[in-house]
Amino acid sequence: MSFTPNARHKMPHLTRTNANGIAHIEMTAPARLNALSDAMIDALQSQFDSLMEDQDTRVVILSGAGKAFCAGHDLREMQAARQDTDGGAARFGGLFDRCATMMQTVQALPQPVIAQVQGIATAAGCQLVATCDLAVAAHSCKFGVNGVNIGLFCSTPMVALTRNIARKQAFEMLTTGRFIDAGEAQKLGLINKSVADDELANATRALARTIADKLPIAVKTGKQAFYEQAQMSTADAYAYTGARMIENMLDPQTNEGINAFLEKRDPDWST
Amino acid sequence: MSFTPNARHKMPHLTRTNANGIAHIEMTAPARLNALSDAMIDALQSQFDSLMEDQDTRVVILSGAGKAFCAGHDLREMQAARQDTDGGAARFGGLFDRCATMMQTVQALPQPVIAQVQGIATAAGCQLVATCDLAVAAHSCKFGVNGVNIGLFCSTPMVALTRNIARKQAFEMLTTGRFIDAGEAQKLGLINKSVADDELANATRALARTIADKLPIAVKTGKQAFYEQAQMSTADAYAYTGARMIENMLDPQTNEGINAFLEKRDPDWST
Amino acid sequence: MSFTPNARHKMPHLTRTNANGIAHIEMTAPARLNALSDAMIDALQSQFDSLMEDQDTRVVILSGAGKAFCAGHDLREMQAARQDTDGGAARFGGLFDRCATMMQTVQALPQPVIAQVQGIATAAGCQLVATCDLAVAAHSCKFGVNGVNIGLFCSTPMVALTRNIARKQAFEMLTTGRFIDAGEAQKLGLINKSVADDELANATRALARTIADKLPIAVKTGKQAFYEQAQMSTADAYAYTGARMIENMLDPQTNEGINAFLEKRDPDWST
Repeated sequence: MSFTPNARHKMPHLTRTNANGIAHIEMTAPARLNALSDAMIDALQSQFDSLMEDQDTRVVILSGAGKAFCAGHDLREMQAARQDTDGGAARFGGLFDRCATMMQTVQALPQPVIAQVQGIATAAGCQLVATCDLAVAAHSCKFGVNGVNIGLFCSTPMVALTRNIARKQAFEMLTTGRFIDAGEAQKLGLINKSVADDELANATRALARTIADKLPIAVKTGKQAFYEQAQMSTADAYAYTGARMIENMLDPQTNEGINAFLEKRDPDWST
Repeated sequence: MSFTPNARHKMPHLTRTNANGIAHIEMTAPARLNALSDAMIDALQSQFDSLMEDQDTRVVILSGAGKAFCAGHDLREMQAARQDTDGGAARFGGLFDRCATMMQTVQALPQPVIAQVQGIATAAGCQLVATCDLAVAAHSCKFGVNGVNIGLFCSTPMVALTRNIARKQAFEMLTTGRFIDAGEAQKLGLINKSVADDELANATRALARTIADKLPIAVKTGKQAFYEQAQMSTADAYAYTGARMIENMLDPQTNEGINAFLEKRDPDWST
Repeated sequence: MSFTPNARHKMPHLTRTNANGIAHIEMTAPARLNALSDAMIDALQSQFDSLMEDQDTRVVILSGAGKAFCAGHDLREMQAARQDTDGGAARFGGLFDRCATMMQTVQALPQPVIAQVQGIATAAGCQLVATCDLAVAAHSCKFGVNGVNIGLFCSTPMVALTRNIARKQAFEMLTTGRFIDAGEAQKLGLINKSVADDELANATRALARTIADKLPIAVKTGKQAFYEQAQMSTADAYAYTGARMIENMLDPQTNEGINAFLEKRDPDWST
């Protein structure tokens, strides 16, 4: 599947709009609160796979149509798997595997991914927010890892959540199922900023535009190193990022960027 | 030693009250500011060991009687060990080992442990707050890792502290010995919430109740995974927590919890 | 090179003033905004090496003369290296290696290092702030990891930044190049405190004085363990810091410090 720049593509479960280097992927299953059903996970994975080598796309926005950004896994679909002879074990395992792969693909993409969050982001939906590189939320939005309320602890969402916010606050959200609002989410570090509901699309697009106007090779180099170095010792992280800095320096467009800065003019990165 | 549900047990150094699935352990050496003497550490370890297989207890509250939650190690007892032929080395080593084991047992318990903190929580007392899964503190409470003031850096408390709050703030507390109040402790992430002094017991009990009313197998599964996954790479953490999610899903009570949610009724987890 | 206590030494690129156990190192290349040129990195490394065994110095203050604390690498010097037959690859590699070594030496020193920050701290200058154990900044100060604006992602500064502040906030600073002010820097955890511009020197000196008055062996033991234990599993960190606590206890001056505390008198640490 290829995607025309500056065009809108409607697919089952998703709409993708490409415009000026920004790919906006919208989950379009509002009646199911954009639940991460098997089909939704596959649709997202397919989009993310297509972005891996996509030179036209510099930044990705991920949003959800309707009253929720995403309400987590599709519980009806999961309950149906209990009819299998193994009680659902194999299908549950497959689901959690594919979901975790999709989440890790978000961070493996060369492009920054911004979650544009409204309504609610719960359970695996909150995990998706925590997983995106950046997140902008509407003031009225609520966040929760509330699986514990129905007896299913948010163990996989916890992986993303605890890599975003402090330990005691994460533990409380996970064991009480308490919802937090956008203001608290920002203070805790789960999102980057909270804006008026009717400013959400504009604010997210402005952030995307700011990043899309940077030199793509610099952003790509940096994002790839971001998650790698975080898992290394400080000494290893310096060795690794030092090598990335050399590569970045040797790119002709970086040469142009630095020269433009020293000459107090705008860089010409058009070639 | 077994503990009757819904009963009060007075022991040397501790009182334990069991009520409605909540075990409240109170350190009762107020004249020594509930210092972590050899005897107090052993008493706490014995309680925590008894909780490891305790099916009746869903949540633990840990508090201190008197003017302090806990003022750290028992310095008089430690100074007395200097009379040993090795200058105290073996006894100091034993003390720090047993203290670290007790702290790690708190996080290894299947039940969430909530620190109910009043007065002061200093040195190893502050470590105990940082170690508990959750903490509620009275407004008037002060926290410090102030061993540096007497020439004994809080090296072991630092392990717990730096896994709760940001690096520069932890370094400052450790090298200046400065006390922080409950409001600052909350902002930094050391505690979950700060309440009026006369609301401390009620607020802590309310938080305990909220968690005690969740499905125990879900809370237990989640707490055990919480600290394990935090020490793994993201990929390993997803593989590990994915397996925990399958187990959680296959529990009949989780099936009931999800069905109840889909049928918009309360779950029946009584069996 | 040796440094007389209570004296002022002017060197190329730096001035060092020793007074009452505090070594104040000031970068003195204001016309270049104290850029981390080859010569500046070497000058700093030489100072830090001399501090490694310096018994007279208990705390280090690092500041920058003029309108900037430090504006990062010396871009003109880097661009000149492009004339080399390898396009600069070897010299860039050498620069990033030596810079990373210098940064890691700051954390390996036995003395706490406090950044006294005014004007701007950008790119590797912001990395230097993040690397110092503590940081005090003037209200008017601005911080940024803004290399992305000229096409050179701040990959090495990211190592220090992401070990100070939360993930989403770090990602935003790195990919947007946005500057933050001292108030936001404090909230995020990048600095310890923000003070009025004309209070900066006094506030930094007061913090240095507080720490310089502690028992040096305690501070040294603690700082060395601080960064080591942060990279260990919790169990390993407890074993490691427990051994450091024994050493600290066995120091005669710690004995005096604890006795003085128990006897409610000031310790005599003069011998």
